Amino acid sequence: MTAERNRQVLLASRPQGEPTPDDFRLVESGVPEPGPGQMLLRTVYLSLDPYMRGRMNAGPSYAPPVEVGAVMEGGTVCEVVASNLPDYGRGDLVLANAGWQEFALSDGDGVRAIDPAHGPISYALGVLGMPGFTAYTGLLNIGRPKPGETLVVAAASGAVGSVVGQIAKIKGCRVVGIAGGERKCRHVEEELGFDVCLDHRRPDLPGRLEAACPGGIDIYFENVGGAVFEAVLPLLNRFARVPVCGLIAHYNAAELPEGPNRVPLAMQAILVKRLTFRGFIVWDFADQFDAFRSEMGGWLREGRVKSREDITEGLEDAPRELIGLLKGENFGKKIIRVGPDPTQHR
Amino acid sequence: MTAERNRQVLLASRPQGEPTPDDFRLVESGVPEPGPGQMLLRTVYLSLDPYMRGRMNAGPSYAPPVEVGAVMEGGTVCEVVASNLPDYGRGDLVLANAGWQEFALSDGDGVRAIDPAHGPISYALGVLGMPGFTAYTGLLNIGRPKPGETLVVAAASGAVGSVVGQIAKIKGCRVVGIAGGERKCRHVEEELGFDVCLDHRRPDLPGRLEAACPGGIDIYFENVGGAVFEAVLPLLNRFARVPVCGLIAHYNAAELPEGPNRVPLAMQAILVKRLTFRGFIVWDFADQFDAFRSEMGGWLREGRVKSREDITEGLEDAPRELIGLLKGENFGKKIIRVGPDPTQHR
Repeated sequence: MTAERNRQVLLASRPQGEPTPDDFRLVESGVPEPGPGQMLLRTVYLSLDPYMRGRMNAGPSYAPPVEVGAVMEGGTVCEVVASNLPDYGRGDLVLANAGWQEFALSDGDGVRAIDPAHGPISYALGVLGMPGFTAYTGLLNIGRPKPGETLVVAAASGAVGSVVGQIAKIKGCRVVGIAGGERKCRHVEEELGFDVCLDHRRPDLPGRLEAACPGGIDIYFENVGGAVFEAVLPLLNRFARVPVCGLIAHYNAAELPEGPNRVPLAMQAILVKRLTFRGFIVWDFADQFDAFRSEMGGWLREGRVKSREDITEGLEDAPRELIGLLKGENFGKKIIRVGPDPTQHR
Repeated sequence: MTAERNRQVLLASRPQGEPTPDDFRLVESGVPEPGPGQMLLRTVYLSLDPYMRGRMNAGPSYAPPVEVGAVMEGGTVCEVVASNLPDYGRGDLVLANAGWQEFALSDGDGVRAIDPAHGPISYALGVLGMPGFTAYTGLLNIGRPKPGETLVVAAASGAVGSVVGQIAKIKGCRVVGIAGGERKCRHVEEELGFDVCLDHRRPDLPGRLEAACPGGIDIYFENVGGAVFEAVLPLLNRFARVPVCGLIAHYNAAELPEGPNRVPLAMQAILVKRLTFRGFIVWDFADQFDAFRSEMGGWLREGRVKSREDITEGLEDAPRELIGLLKGENFGKKIIRVGPDPTQHR
C-alpha cells in the first residue's frame, strides 16, 4: 500500500546491568497491510519510561518480558493510516502500544482516541497519560495526602514525580522534591511550585533532607529507591504512607548492594512507626482513568499543573535516550518524535 | 495496712543483645497505702510478652523505655485489696498494668474489670486480651483474609500466632504455621487445626514452605522477621498483605546481619507484586475492643478457638522466663502466677 519502509528497534540482547546500544538493533521491514478487523498506525510519538528496563530482563515483572529479537514495547501516539475497523478512520489520532517502530497493525484492543482539542497530543503519553495517572492514583489512593502534611518525592522533574508534587501542593501539603542538578531543582521550585527541591548530587542529602522536613515526612512517594530511600526512612512520621511506584536506582543493578543487610531496619521502622508500604501499578486503578483525565484536564487549564516535555527527534535515538533516562539525563517527560505531528503543535 | 512486703523486679541495666539475669534486680519494699482516689492492687498474673524486650532499650519505640532502676512494665490481672475509688471494691478482679511486682497503686486509669464468668481470668492477658486482640485486629484490618487464600504465621503456638491462624481458619483460609520443635508443631496441627505446621529448626525451611503453599501466600502475618521473612518473600502472591506485628528474631540483635543489603529485593517484591506491608500496634484499633471481646468470647465458647497457656509460678522467675520467651522456649501464652488466683480455676 505504500513504498515506505518500517523502521523498528528490536531487543538484541538482554543487558547485564546498564543497557548499551548493542542491546538494541535498528531494522527495516516492509510496512504491513491491515487485514480485516485491523488498522495500520503510524507512530507520531513514542514514550520512554523507566519500566522499559524491567521488560528487557528475562525474569517476570508486571508483564512478560520482551523477547530477544522482538520489537521493544512502548506507549505511542499514532495516526491512523488505514482502517478496516468501524470505530477508526484515516487521520484519527490514537493512544496505542505500538512499540518502538514507525508503523504497526492494531485490532483496536487497548487503543483510545485522542482529542487534540485537549492540548498537545503528546500529553497523552505524559501528564494526561500513564505517568500522570500513575502519580494521581498512587498519591490519592495510597499516599492519601492531608493538608499540612509533608510529602517527599524524588525524580521531581520527571514525568511522575513532577505531577505527584503538584497534586500534593493542590491538596495542601508541604512538598519537598529531590532531583539531579541545580537546573532541574530550580525548575521544580520555580515552575512547578514545590516548597523545596534538593539536588541529590550535592553532599549530605540526609542532613539537607532533614532540614527541609522539620516536621518529618508523612508521605514518601517511592520512585527511585537507593540512597534516597535510606535518607527518607529515619524521617518518616508515625502512620506515614509509602506508595511504591518505581525503583529506578536499582533497575540497572546487576547485584545487591554491599551489606550489612538493612532489611531489619526497614521492617523495624514499619513496625514501630506503623508505616504502610504499598506497591502498585497504575492499571490497578484503571476504573479511575476517566475521573483522572477530567480532573487533570482542569488543573492543566487552570495552570495548577504544568508539564515539561523532553522531546528528541528520531526513532534511531530511542536506545541512547532510554539509556540516558535511566541515568537521569532527561529533563521532563521523555518522548521520541518518531514522525511528523499532524497537529503541528510544535 | 499489712505486714507484707512488696517484691518487685527492676530493670538493673540495659541489655546489649540478649538479656541476662543480671539485667534485672529483685527488690523488696513496703506495701504502699492507697491515698484518696487510689486503690491497692495485688498481682495475680503477670503477662510476659516479646514487646518487653524493646522497652528495655534506651531508644524510642511505641512507648518510652523503662528507666534503669524502675519496675519492669507489664500487663497484669490483679485483685483489689483496698480501694478509695467508687467503681472498685475489695475483691474485684481487674486487668491493669501493674508491672513486675506483687502490689501496686492505681488511680483506675487504664484499668478494666474482669468477669470471671467469661473463663479463666488469665485469659484477659492472652486470648481475650492484648495478644488475642493483636491477632484479631492485625489479621482482619490489614490481612483481610478471604476464603481460599493461604496465610502463613510464625510463632504459631504462641499467644498471637495461635489466634491468627485459628481466626484465619474460621475465615476459610488455608493456614500454614511455623513453630520451633516437633511438639509445638503437632499441637498447632492437631489442637489448633492449622493445615500444616513447619518446624523451623529442621533444614530447608524455604523448600518445605514452598511445598506447603502450592498456591503461594496471600497473607503473611509478620511477628518474627529474620529467616522466616526471607523464606516467605519469594512466595508472596500478587496483592498479598503483610501485617507487621513483631520481629522477635531481631529484638536481641546487637547489630545488623551480614550483607548483601537485601532491601532492594524486598522493595522490588513490594513493587512488582503490589504488596502491602503495614505496621500496627493493637491500640491503633482500640475502638474495636468490645467487638473483639464479644466475637472471641463466642469462638472460645464454641470451641472454635483454643488457647494454651504456659504458666510459671513466682515473680522471681520472670526474668528467666522472659529471656526464654525471646528464644522461643515458652509453649503457649507465657504467664507468671505472682500470687494466688482467687477464682482457683487451676
